[in-house]
Amino acid sequence: MDPDKKTVVVLGSGWASTSFIKKLDTRYYNLVVVSPRNYFLFTPLLPSSTVGTVNMKSIIEPIRFITRHKKRAVQVFEAECTAVDPASKTITIEDHTPEKDHHPVKSLSYDYLVIGVGARNSTFGVPGVDKYGCFLKEAKDARKIHNKLMDCIENAALPNQSPEEVNRLLHMVVVGGGATGIEYAAELHDFLVDDLRTWYPDLADKIKISLIEALPNVLPQFSKQLIEYTEKNFQKQHITIHTKTQVKEVHPKELVVKKADDSVSTMPYGLLVWATGNTTAALVQKLKEQFPEEQTAKKGLAVDDWLKMKGCEDIYAFGDATHTQYAPTGQVASQQGKYLAHQFKQMFIRDALEAQLKKAQDEKEKEKIQKKLNHIKEIKPFQYTHHGSLW
Amino acid sequence: MDPDKKTVVVLGSGWASTSFIKKLDTRYYNLVVVSPRNYFLFTPLLPSSTVGTVNMKSIIEPIRFITRHKKRAVQVFEAECTAVDPASKTITIEDHTPEKDHHPVKSLSYDYLVIGVGARNSTFGVPGVDKYGCFLKEAKDARKIHNKLMDCIENAALPNQSPEEVNRLLHMVVVGGGATGIEYAAELHDFLVDDLRTWYPDLADKIKISLIEALPNVLPQFSKQLIEYTEKNFQKQHITIHTKTQVKEVHPKELVVKKADDSVSTMPYGLLVWATGNTTAALVQKLKEQFPEEQTAKKGLAVDDWLKMKGCEDIYAFGDATHTQYAPTGQVASQQGKYLAHQFKQMFIRDALEAQLKKAQDEKEKEKIQKKLNHIKEIKPFQYTHHGSLW
Repeated sequence: MDPDKKTVVVLGSGWASTSFIKKLDTRYYNLVVVSPRNYFLFTPLLPSSTVGTVNMKSIIEPIRFITRHKKRAVQVFEAECTAVDPASKTITIEDHTPEKDHHPVKSLSYDYLVIGVGARNSTFGVPGVDKYGCFLKEAKDARKIHNKLMDCIENAALPNQSPEEVNRLLHMVVVGGGATGIEYAAELHDFLVDDLRTWYPDLADKIKISLIEALPNVLPQFSKQLIEYTEKNFQKQHITIHTKTQVKEVHPKELVVKKADDSVSTMPYGLLVWATGNTTAALVQKLKEQFPEEQTAKKGLAVDDWLKMKGCEDIYAFGDATHTQYAPTGQVASQQGKYLAHQFKQMFIRDALEAQLKKAQDEKEKEKIQKKLNHIKEIKPFQYTHHGSLW
Repeated sequence: MDPDKKTVVVLGSGWASTSFIKKLDTRYYNLVVVSPRNYFLFTPLLPSSTVGTVNMKSIIEPIRFITRHKKRAVQVFEAECTAVDPASKTITIEDHTPEKDHHPVKSLSYDYLVIGVGARNSTFGVPGVDKYGCFLKEAKDARKIHNKLMDCIENAALPNQSPEEVNRLLHMVVVGGGATGIEYAAELHDFLVDDLRTWYPDLADKIKISLIEALPNVLPQFSKQLIEYTEKNFQKQHITIHTKTQVKEVHPKELVVKKADDSVSTMPYGLLVWATGNTTAALVQKLKEQFPEEQTAKKGLAVDDWLKMKGCEDIYAFGDATHTQYAPTGQVASQQGKYLAHQFKQMFIRDALEAQLKKAQDEKEKEKIQKKLNHIKEIKPFQYTHHGSLW
């Protein structure tokens, strides 16, 4: 760490933060990375990793692999940031591993803080989701789904299982009709019905996949054409779509669901994958409450068009941690990371020119520096360029 | 399952059982596999998988992948056999997964039972080993070691860690100076000191590896030459060997050890790998107690030279579940599996000839069958052929 350089602390190691870490020029700044996960995860292939189509290690890149190729040494701390104090420009980091010592809470100073901590899985307060359901966000979620899937299938193959128990074990339920839920229901079908047929020939025809969505149709944010295509395809593959259906409770082996006609029933299940979108991460929620006047967005941090957090100096945010006009995708986050790294470079040059201007004595020189400064001051706001979708 | 054929139930999916499953001719027998693990694990590469040199999926082969290529359908049950009743020729199997129903205990009948359940890790009753130490036997052990290793290193890299805590976290202890322990200490060295140097340059020189052995020297079952080579190499690599040292207690962050001079001291550690060999598996212990007169071996099942369990009809055993003159290696177990499958084929032919003999009326035909029978009855005892060691 060079004491003459400003220190940028970046939180998180997802799409936005990793892109920022890759692009930030460490000749201009000290860089510190704080994330409870010491690797980047290529999330589009996470569903495939639950069924073994891709190997988990193939979709992981250690953050230290990226940082060790930077021009100057980067500090990486595997810890979670639990609080930000903008007044003293410090953050609190906590170690949650079993190896933590008696003082797991440490403090770090920053000149600039960049928040890319992502979002939390939303459960809408439905009891039992955290305990009995599986999310689809982190590597550990994929492992949990994989183990659960194999347990269900192997248990259904045990001798003397009752037909009801076999049906329960082989009933896979996906909750959430957004892109993630739809994609995952299809992935499950390909694996369970197609791939497993040769391995468990007696079970393949007993597998049932259901998709539950509270709204009147799936993929509400997509075109009518895509919705119809999906519905037709799912019908062909015997994936049952239950729209206008809400999950009210999750028990170890059954769900309580409420239909459009207000009727309440139970639904036995083997595997439950919960993909109903994101809600605000704990740290972000805390920070919002510190600036109630400026931070009025329902979810995520409000930022200006330059990704600076509203109401607060020297704090920037991007990706799923923020509330913007863009969809919460890796593509947006990645472009934001790249943009912010470029903006930081411009900020450094601007600060350097301003320092030069102060020192300059010759009028002509001053004018020259001022010209450069005028040019650099116009940092353009972030603009997203859509390069297409994966499906 | 063909009711006219005898049913062979094989327990386990390790070296012996898998080799038996591969070789048994299912034209002659119904085959049922019972194992709490639905895959074969290539154990020689397990140490490498803890440090990412090989991927876990590369050293696993699903049992169903093997069985689905057999001539007739094989039943595979992912469950643990918890009891054998030789009188009624039935076994009890139990499901231990979270998916188990209210009746997790089922019963299965056999004509022949083949026991290849392996052995349990021996802890010599040292308190805390199970809870805080890591074994090196199953896939889950390798994952546990990997997570523990990374937690230790990442924690040592956290800001403001005391030098004592850093030293503790980076002290890796292997208990057991047999082949497994020695190999693992070397693997740890290669990974931590060589590979990690570029990733954690500040930590590499602080890593300490210790090997603890209760006997006066390591590798007691090997040649003096190999022992000296190992000791010299370890000295060069700064792996400290503590011989004549016993671990008396294992606590979360320190061991209590007793040296040759009876002095007792504590040893702080980050990772503890426990590799002190095998002891009898629970099922085998139970079965031994059912035949106290014939089953007098200290560890494992006593079998005759044809791998038939002593004191009991129609039960065979092989691999680490047995007590034989051979070393507990995969090579021995694998040859035993192949041998037993061949013996079962001969048994089938013998039984068929005996049935023919009973039915035969012509004296000349009887003589011919008897001749064949005399030849087949001479089933040769198992003999091990050493094809060399991996190191």
